[in-house]
Amino acid sequence: MARVARKETVLHEAARLFAEKGFAATSVREVADAAGLTKAGLYYHVREKEELLHAICAHSIAAILDDARPLVAEASGGEAGIRAVIAAHLGFFFRHPHNLVVLNKEMGHLAPAHRAEIAELERDYLDLIRGVIRAGREGGRFRRCDPSVSAFLLLSMLNGLDAWYRPERGVGPEALEAHIAETFLQGTLMPAGNMSDS
Amino acid sequence: MARVARKETVLHEAARLFAEKGFAATSVREVADAAGLTKAGLYYHVREKEELLHAICAHSIAAILDDARPLVAEASGGEAGIRAVIAAHLGFFFRHPHNLVVLNKEMGHLAPAHRAEIAELERDYLDLIRGVIRAGREGGRFRRCDPSVSAFLLLSMLNGLDAWYRPERGVGPEALEAHIAETFLQGTLMPAGNMSDS
Repeated sequence: MARVARKETVLHEAARLFAEKGFAATSVREVADAAGLTKAGLYYHVREKEELLHAICAHSIAAILDDARPLVAEASGGEAGIRAVIAAHLGFFFRHPHNLVVLNKEMGHLAPAHRAEIAELERDYLDLIRGVIRAGREGGRFRRCDPSVSAFLLLSMLNGLDAWYRPERGVGPEALEAHIAETFLQGTLMPAGNMSDS
Repeated sequence: MARVARKETVLHEAARLFAEKGFAATSVREVADAAGLTKAGLYYHVREKEELLHAICAHSIAAILDDARPLVAEASGGEAGIRAVIAAHLGFFFRHPHNLVVLNKEMGHLAPAHRAEIAELERDYLDLIRGVIRAGREGGRFRRCDPSVSAFLLLSMLNGLDAWYRPERGVGPEALEAHIAETFLQGTLMPAGNMSDS
């Protein structure tokens, strides 16, 4: 297996183990075993366990950003921009559910320099969403709101998925995407003057 | 200090330390020191560190439920019910911000029986919110939606606060409460036929 593909496998298995057992309770040997490597072989790819955690966190946010930026750039207006962000985030969540668990729970184990780097990526992501919300406000399509608070509320709905979403509950990816977009964009109340949708 | 008041202090200090340093990295001696007790004195209140974690988690959800239930019962209709849930949750968050960090990050360290007990309290809370959403739908005031997904999205916004909310950013409790309620109930888009609020 090529080195890059092998490293992908290592990160995938590390994310799965960190999500299932926690970072602290997972040994480097378990990651090596799961990736089909010797411990020495694993050390060819990473120098220590924290480096795995850093790579998982950095890769995850960067991947969502790389998917979201062109979608947002193509979107015309705030509403389409919000739908683009939700699509990019959910796309990553469904491909790599364990990574978002690790991002939510294990960042406290990062070395300070790495934590600062992840915080910067998170800031870039937040800025992207705030920019969409500002554009929606300036275009007159969005309500008066604090764009930062609105962006954090959307991020909370997206980042909170790993705590409750289970495919076996019968809500598929498309229905979930639509539900989050409707809740954030149109809310739960019926529009005034239309008191029943039945 | 009476035993109950002392136990309150112990739980408060334990939640602060678990939130700041993580459950695994906090020693029983640190909790005792912070609460002004000897280690032996602490063992009069709790038998082991996990018991502190269990008490913090159980107390937090039970306190939110105890506040929310009468408010929801008094509320007329789904919209007021949702506002009551948000008020109860934020009230607890502002009084005990560390507890929600612990609930979000450290539940993995609970013993299985305790985890099951907390899961049951979380289910009670979810059921309360789902009931409000169903009432809103049946009253014709709420859009067609899956009440479970809507309830989880609201809970995600509320549980996500500890990750981003900082009072020094200038958004006070009332503004935050109103912003969450508007986002969940009315969404971000302007109502149709009213394309600008300026």
